[in-house]
This record gives sequence, C-alpha cells and structure tokens, in this order.
Amino acid sequence: MQRSSPSNVATGRDTYPIHAPSIAARMTRSLLRRIGDPAIALVLWTGETVTTGRREPIGQLIVANPRTLARLFFDPEMEFGEAYSDGRIHVRGDLTRIMEEVNRCEAASAISPALRAPIRSARAVYRYSSRSRARDNIYHHYDISNDFYSMWLGRTMAYTCAYYPAAEATLDEAQIAKMDHVCRKLRLRPGERVIEAGCGWGSLAIHMACRYGVKVTALNISREQLGFARKRAKAEGLGEQVDFIESDYRDIDQAEGSYDAFVSVGMLEHVNLHDYVDLGRRVSKCLNAAGRGLIHSIGRNRPARLHAWIEKRIFPGASAPAIGEMMRIFESADHSILDVENLRPHYARTLRDWRERFNGHIEAVREQFDERFVRMWELYLCGSEAAFHTGDLQIFQILFAPRASSFAPWTRADLYAPADQHAHL
Amino acid sequence: MQRSSPSNVATGRDTYPIHAPSIAARMTRSLLRRIGDPAIALVLWTGETVTTGRREPIGQLIVANPRTLARLFFDPEMEFGEAYSDGRIHVRGDLTRIMEEVNRCEAASAISPALRAPIRSARAVYRYSSRSRARDNIYHHYDISNDFYSMWLGRTMAYTCAYYPAAEATLDEAQIAKMDHVCRKLRLRPGERVIEAGCGWGSLAIHMACRYGVKVTALNISREQLGFARKRAKAEGLGEQVDFIESDYRDIDQAEGSYDAFVSVGMLEHVNLHDYVDLGRRVSKCLNAAGRGLIHSIGRNRPARLHAWIEKRIFPGASAPAIGEMMRIFESADHSILDVENLRPHYARTLRDWRERFNGHIEAVREQFDERFVRMWELYLCGSEAAFHTGDLQIFQILFAPRASSFAPWTRADLYAPADQHAHL
Repeated sequence: MQRSSPSNVATGRDTYPIHAPSIAARMTRSLLRRIGDPAIALVLWTGETVTTGRREPIGQLIVANPRTLARLFFDPEMEFGEAYSDGRIHVRGDLTRIMEEVNRCEAASAISPALRAPIRSARAVYRYSSRSRARDNIYHHYDISNDFYSMWLGRTMAYTCAYYPAAEATLDEAQIAKMDHVCRKLRLRPGERVIEAGCGWGSLAIHMACRYGVKVTALNISREQLGFARKRAKAEGLGEQVDFIESDYRDIDQAEGSYDAFVSVGMLEHVNLHDYVDLGRRVSKCLNAAGRGLIHSIGRNRPARLHAWIEKRIFPGASAPAIGEMMRIFESADHSILDVENLRPHYARTLRDWRERFNGHIEAVREQFDERFVRMWELYLCGSEAAFHTGDLQIFQILFAPRASSFAPWTRADLYAPADQHAHL
Repeated sequence: MQRSSPSNVATGRDTYPIHAPSIAARMTRSLLRRIGDPAIALVLWTGETVTTGRREPIGQLIVANPRTLARLFFDPEMEFGEAYSDGRIHVRGDLTRIMEEVNRCEAASAISPALRAPIRSARAVYRYSSRSRARDNIYHHYDISNDFYSMWLGRTMAYTCAYYPAAEATLDEAQIAKMDHVCRKLRLRPGERVIEAGCGWGSLAIHMACRYGVKVTALNISREQLGFARKRAKAEGLGEQVDFIESDYRDIDQAEGSYDAFVSVGMLEHVNLHDYVDLGRRVSKCLNAAGRGLIHSIGRNRPARLHAWIEKRIFPGASAPAIGEMMRIFESADHSILDVENLRPHYARTLRDWRERFNGHIEAVREQFDERFVRMWELYLCGSEAAFHTGDLQIFQILFAPRASSFAPWTRADLYAPADQHAHL
C-alpha cells in the first residue's frame, strides 16, 4: 500500500491489506521526522515499512517489537545501540552509510537535540573524576584482553588515529607515519627527555626511544597494557631508555622542570573537562626552558556531550571536547598554540581498516566473547567511522609551548622533508 | 651613592650628596617592583638613578618631570606611550629590548594586572561597534596617507605579518610567500570565486587573481586604500577579475552560497568580539558546498584587553583575541577547524624589517607629520616587535570549512611541495 502523503507506509503482508497506518507506524514516521528525515526505512514487526518518502531509502532497519520502537521513540541515540547489540534491530544495507545519513540529517535539522532525545536530555549526569573512577573507566575498555586488540589493531597495537601519507598506505605503515609525524612536530632530538601520559601498549614510547634517541617516561593506568608494553621494550632492548610507570597524568609533574617534551596521544578524551586547567598547570610544571608539548585528541566543532550509547557501553567517562574547551588547558597556563592539525579523514580511514581486520577475526571474537559483544563492537567501529566522515567528530593534533619556552620552529617545512633528513640516529 | 639594600639610588650630582632617596625615587622603585623588577634603570629629573638592583640594567629611561612619574606610577601602560611620544621620557639603549624586558617581567610577576595599572583597571570601556564607528576607527589608522605607508611597507604594500620561508628572505619576498602560503592553504583553483574581507591596498586580491586565476570580490571600508587598490588592479590588467567594493564584512553574504573561499588577512583585529558569532554566520552563508575559509589574525595565549596606549593612539576599537575567543566565530556556525599555524617569529621579523625601512625615511616622515608622530610610530613598531618576541602577542592563520563542506585536504604536504607544482596558470 502506498499513500500519496509525504510519508509512505507499505505492508509486506498483502493478504491483510492495511488501510491506515498503525499507531506504531505513525510513531515511527514521527521519529524519522524528528531526526531530520533520513533516507532510511524502518520495517516494523507489523510488516509495515515506514519512510518519510522524500528520498529513496539507502537501507532498512528491521525493528523486532513494540518495546524497541517505544524506547527508540524516546531515546533513539541510546536505544539504537542497545537494540542493535541485542539483535532487536537488524540492518539491511551498509551500517556505516546508514549512520552517516542519520548524522547528516540531524546536523541539518533545526530540531534541538533536547526534542530529538527527550529521555537523554532529562538525564543529568554527574561525572566524578577521582583517580579510582578514572581507573574503573579505563579498565572497562582497555583491559578487556590484549589478545582481542591484537586481532585488529595491527602490528603496532596503536589504538588511535593513524596518518596515511598516501592513500595506498597500510594500517601499519600509517601508524608508524603517525608516530613520526608526532615526533617531527615535537622536533625531538637525541638525548632529550620525554614524558608521555596515557601510553597505551607502548608503541609511541618505544618508537620515540628507538628512532629518535630520547629517554621516555611513559604513564598508564591500565595494567594489561603496561605489562604488554614493558615486555615489548625489553624484547627490543630498550628497557633502559623507556620507563613504563603505572600512574595517572596527575603525576607528570613529580619531577619538576625535567622534561623537554610532553606528549599525549588519545588520552585527553578520558580527562574530565573540569580537570583541564589542572592538566595545563602540571604540563607547565614538568617542562624545562625549551619545553613543548603535543596533545592528540578526538574533538568536535562545538561543545556537546559524547554520544550516549558510546559513553555508556564503550567509553564511560569520556568526552570529545571542542577546541574552545581544550583551550582551558592552555589559557590559564599561558601556553602558546603553535600548530593545530585536523586529521579527520585519516580517522575515518583508520576505523575502516580496523573494522576490516575485526571482520576477518569475527569468529574468534565471537568465541572469546559472545554475539552481543560482536554486535556492540561492530556498531562502535561503524558509528565512529560515520561520525568522522560526517564531521560529528574531529581529531586534532595540538602542538604548544609555554610562553617563555625557547622552542619556536621557524616554519613547518621540516615536517614534510624527506625521511632521511629526520634520521637522528 | 650606592645603598646596600636590594634597591639602589644613585645621584649624578655628587656635589650635593643625597643621603636618603627622594620620595620620587621611592615611588619609582615601587613602580619597578610592581611591574616585576625589570632590569632597567629610571633616571629622574632629580639626578637620581633608580633600579631594583637585582640585575645589571639593559637600558635607561630618562624621566623629565614629576608629573610624568606620577602618571607612570598610576597607569604605566598608557603613560609610557604618552610620555615617550611627547618626549617627556627619553630612552638610552635599545627600545625594543627594554620593552621585551618589561613584558617578560610582567608575565613572570605574580602581581595582578589590576594592581600594576590601577587607573587603567578602573577605566570601563564600552566599545560601540556600529558601522560608522568601525569606519572612524579604520580612517584613524589606514587613511593617514598612502605615501606614508609606501615608505616602509615595501613594494607589496601588505600591512600584515609576512612569511619568511628562509631567514635570508627580503620583506617583499616574504610578503609574496605569505600570499602564496594563504592561497595554498585554501587550495585555490583557477576559475574559483573568492571573497576577501578587509583587503588593505589590494595586494592579496591581485595576487590571487593573477597567480591562481580566481575571481575575487574584495571588500574594504578605507577609501584611501580602495582607490590605491583599484588603480593597481587596472594597471595590471585585472580590472575584470578583481572587484574592489567599498563595504564592510557584514556584506559578504549578500550573494548567498556563491563563493568557494572566504579569506581575511588582518581584519579580525578590527571586529568586535560581540560580532564574532555574526561573522561566522555570514561566512557560512556566503560559501558554496565546497567552501572553506582562512582567517589570519593577531591573537594571544589568553583573553586580555589590547595594550591601552595602542588601543588609544594606534588602533582604536581593535583587539587581539585568544583562540578560545576566536572559536565563537566557528562554533555556532558549525565550522571545522582544519589547520592553525602560529607565525609569531615571522611577525617579529616583519616588524623589524618595517622599522628599518621606517628609520630610513625618518626625515621624510618628520617633514610630512611631526616629531610626536615619529616617536609614536617608533614606539608602536618597537613595542609590537617586543610583544611578538616575548609572546604577549601571537599571530594565527586559521583554515576552516563548514561541517558539510566537501573541502578536505588529505595532508598538508602539498603546502610544502616545490613552487612549480602550484603553478596553475
């Protein structure tokens, strides 16, 4: 059945023609309108297919039952994730493209986020940022299992945006290029001392020590990651040059004025906005007279809370700050911003590469965890790729230096000079 | 006479030894303390030389009379400029270095700016930002005389920070390199349409049209500058390709969605902070689906008012915003920041080059204006050079694009490729 109105409701059960849309179909149509008329179809348990009829749908969401629709109606952001993970929503089509379509329509829609997801808006979240809470949040995500991450992060085990100097670069090449890009921006020189906050599985710390001849103190609060990193450094004979410490960024300033560079790749997302001023103060304190720093972090065009489902299921306590918010770190500490680069297309590409590898090991993941975990992770990877494609998320590398620092690169041309000009060792 | 206390008061009139410092000397010492103990000496009309005695003075300020000292005591920032211009303060030593010393001590001092300059702090300034006020402010500085600016800006007549690809570049070479750097960042392609807000004497507009084959609409509210720019474009046979319009940035969106790029070099300093959101909205409106923009502006590490004397005598109504403040332009318009570059060392160098040329024509300037004007301009050029050296001021180039724009350069390597790879014509 087709209606001539701007919304179409059709049924697959042609033996029981429906002459008017059901209440469920009307709710669905209203939901689609509210999120800005995306070109997707929702197929309900009643057999009805609902679209807003404006453009040809690029994919379908199959909604299993009334409870799912009702929850979706009041809190689409959270419930889509929950229902997809549980298998109460199935997708026909490309999940990433469908999520891009929703992002674009929401961004273009004049309807306020509060009306789009009334339940979420009503939720008042008080984020407690003690060290122990930070620890819990980090365990939640990073201490799942090193074996699991090994399946899809590639040889470097770098779990942050890669940098593809050319489109044909592999994930491993791009992760190494990212580390070089960071080291070049910091103009690391042999013998310098670097402090890294949030070192993951240690790839950057080891790369800096091995390729740039610096001495690294690397902090992390994830024990699984630290164990892995220490083994790795020892295997490469760098045990003396890299010191992996189980500690929080709050400890970076224990050795006052003793570092040439501060670096943090993919940690700021886990620092509470209220702690930014404190972070800036500690960075100042730990740096010497030629000191400089680089923060690599997911961000946004303007302040907004993290996606509700991602915050609940994937990254508890995390945020994606706008540049204006990040400036709290630098302003009160009187740091000069020297260089900001947005690597957004590179993160979309990184996520696609991760997802391809993840899909290649999907049976092993299902065996290690369960079907729900697989679906959650699929949604997280596809949804993140979509967010970087559509500009819901950005990824910034910010190079800075305390105002009084003598660090002042003349131009950025050296970053793009042939590699042999950077070989310090 | 030398005292053993941390402050020394000596007199040149050794026939009339002074056994205790005068009230004037005590006031002077207290003033030096308040601005953070700079290594400079003040020589008073009494013959006393006052320092805080901590370090060897790098220069002397000769203070002519009690009135000057009293004003300096209550409002050093404003009175130093006034007294220097009037010849009530003379300098022995390098003016730029002395101002750098004061900047550094003030920045390091724990004394709040309110205590440093009580009169200034008490001054409440309400900045009115109507079009007619904007016009008055622009006339004040830019419509003095094209002949005057021709003496020291060099062949390009570009009155903004140059970009010295190598240290040995000349001012003219560096101004052209700056224009190329801007055009490359915007990835201009032949046939595209560009709108420029605040085009000065037209050098960038003409360069874009001539070297990158784009069609430019360039706005300015200074009639002296526009007349000069139009003649120049005609002389180069670019009358058809560049349209110089007597208009404010508020008119950029009259032709909705019709530009590929928005560019503004050295105009933001004259836009009131309260108008930033409006500016961002208008930029969005004037750009097409592949649109992007570049704003080149003086800025700061953190919010602060413009130097009081500069604001009064040189740039009425101007400001030097922090990046966090600039983000008001981009956040509400949902623009993505793609690239921020701080060119601070280049502005210090540009100012030195301007001052050398200015000094080369100092007799002609004195003849065209008067001694007071010469001293004012000297102070402005030296003070600005000092401010960029010490980080009181920063200079940012910000590349951005509306969130939905298809403009997304993959890396920045193309900016640093050899010049022939950029010749589009």
